[in-house]
Amino acid sequence: MLSKNQTKRITSLKQKKYRQQEGVFVVEGLKSVTEFLKSSYELEVVYYNNEEFIADLEPVAKEQSVQINSTELERISFLTTAPQVLGVFKIPEEKLILKNGITVVLDDIRDPGNLGTIIRLCDWFGVSQLVCSLQTVDCYNPKVVQATMGSLSRVGIQYTNLPSFLEEDKRPVFGTFLQGNSIYKMDRVTDALIVMGNEANGISERVATYVDNRITIPQFGVSKSTESLNVATATAICLNEFFRPR
Amino acid sequence: MLSKNQTKRITSLKQKKYRQQEGVFVVEGLKSVTEFLKSSYELEVVYYNNEEFIADLEPVAKEQSVQINSTELERISFLTTAPQVLGVFKIPEEKLILKNGITVVLDDIRDPGNLGTIIRLCDWFGVSQLVCSLQTVDCYNPKVVQATMGSLSRVGIQYTNLPSFLEEDKRPVFGTFLQGNSIYKMDRVTDALIVMGNEANGISERVATYVDNRITIPQFGVSKSTESLNVATATAICLNEFFRPR
Repeated sequence: MLSKNQTKRITSLKQKKYRQQEGVFVVEGLKSVTEFLKSSYELEVVYYNNEEFIADLEPVAKEQSVQINSTELERISFLTTAPQVLGVFKIPEEKLILKNGITVVLDDIRDPGNLGTIIRLCDWFGVSQLVCSLQTVDCYNPKVVQATMGSLSRVGIQYTNLPSFLEEDKRPVFGTFLQGNSIYKMDRVTDALIVMGNEANGISERVATYVDNRITIPQFGVSKSTESLNVATATAICLNEFFRPR
Repeated sequence: MLSKNQTKRITSLKQKKYRQQEGVFVVEGLKSVTEFLKSSYELEVVYYNNEEFIADLEPVAKEQSVQINSTELERISFLTTAPQVLGVFKIPEEKLILKNGITVVLDDIRDPGNLGTIIRLCDWFGVSQLVCSLQTVDCYNPKVVQATMGSLSRVGIQYTNLPSFLEEDKRPVFGTFLQGNSIYKMDRVTDALIVMGNEANGISERVATYVDNRITIPQFGVSKSTESLNVATATAICLNEFFRPR
């Protein structure tokens, strides 16, 4: 059974303020919880409504697993359809950013679905780190965690002041703009920062001053009147161009 | 002023049943309404709360534009933040599918955001038509319309029984699978059907029997444990590979 206070604590984790205060966040669903258990993330507690599900998980200490009923799970879930397993994991300390390879840099991404999709894309392309501006949506937001489908457990994420970070990092900085050099004509690079901008305003003026290579995804077709691509699909195309074999 | 009945009629358009009964759908926001007015879509009525906005629109007949106040707009809007302009447009008759060029085919896409993003991608790559299975989410669903950012006005969409359609169309059929030939090794094609599958189950068994070319987007990195890509980002990468210059 869940006490009123326990229920209140978990539902409060929808808000960043309480996640930071408690130092934990919520992961929902058997698949995602399994992936976090396999990773370096530290489990606080896992709630489940059926012993079958817990048996499928990596070994979890008895005192860290609590069987509750479906109504209780519904009460603490952030999803429309409550999962059968819900884990509370500790927010890790941010690691130092490795200064080589490809790193994706996000300048004020606000939509949780977009951030989640971009984390999943980084994982797919083997990009192990993501640097976010301080105004980017929190990666432990339940909607972000959900959209990553477990990929959050494998991609390191750091929130930082972008101008200072870009000032210090010596890799070439690529940034996507509506006007820039065709992404199809880029030379191959193995060390780079790729900056993606805010959904409505693109890359901010301040951050743009650090961009050495303005790149653009050319538009096809007759009308060419699409205003822009969604930032997650633009990131997909960019990463594909950086990684695809030539 | 909006009568109670008018308000009720417009809010009912959130449901497919009422959209089909009335033969109309809702477009919100100045930018999207402008793009629909420029297109072949027929306007029924546009609601606005400020004459400045209507002045910015393509000429609209007086009897087709109704000034209402912001509270009334909030009442009929499907968005969290009500727009200043809301248009009701007629659902057009479906056009015959052109049997050449590249056509995207969707096998039961359920998420409105995914369908909207795919329509926006088709528009970006100049893909003028999209064929959807009968179980795919309705393209006139307000969340789909919103996610297309006006692109719906330029991409022709037809809902049909996929096996019959694929049986009849003579173009080569490409389909994305987790196991298939690398998309990076494809020969260049200019006439093709590209099938994208359902979010959870991929391409259905029945539809898969019509796929001549099973393609896959290779995974990079060390772990290679990402289960799959989101269908909209996978579509972005596929269309990029079909259209990018070689």
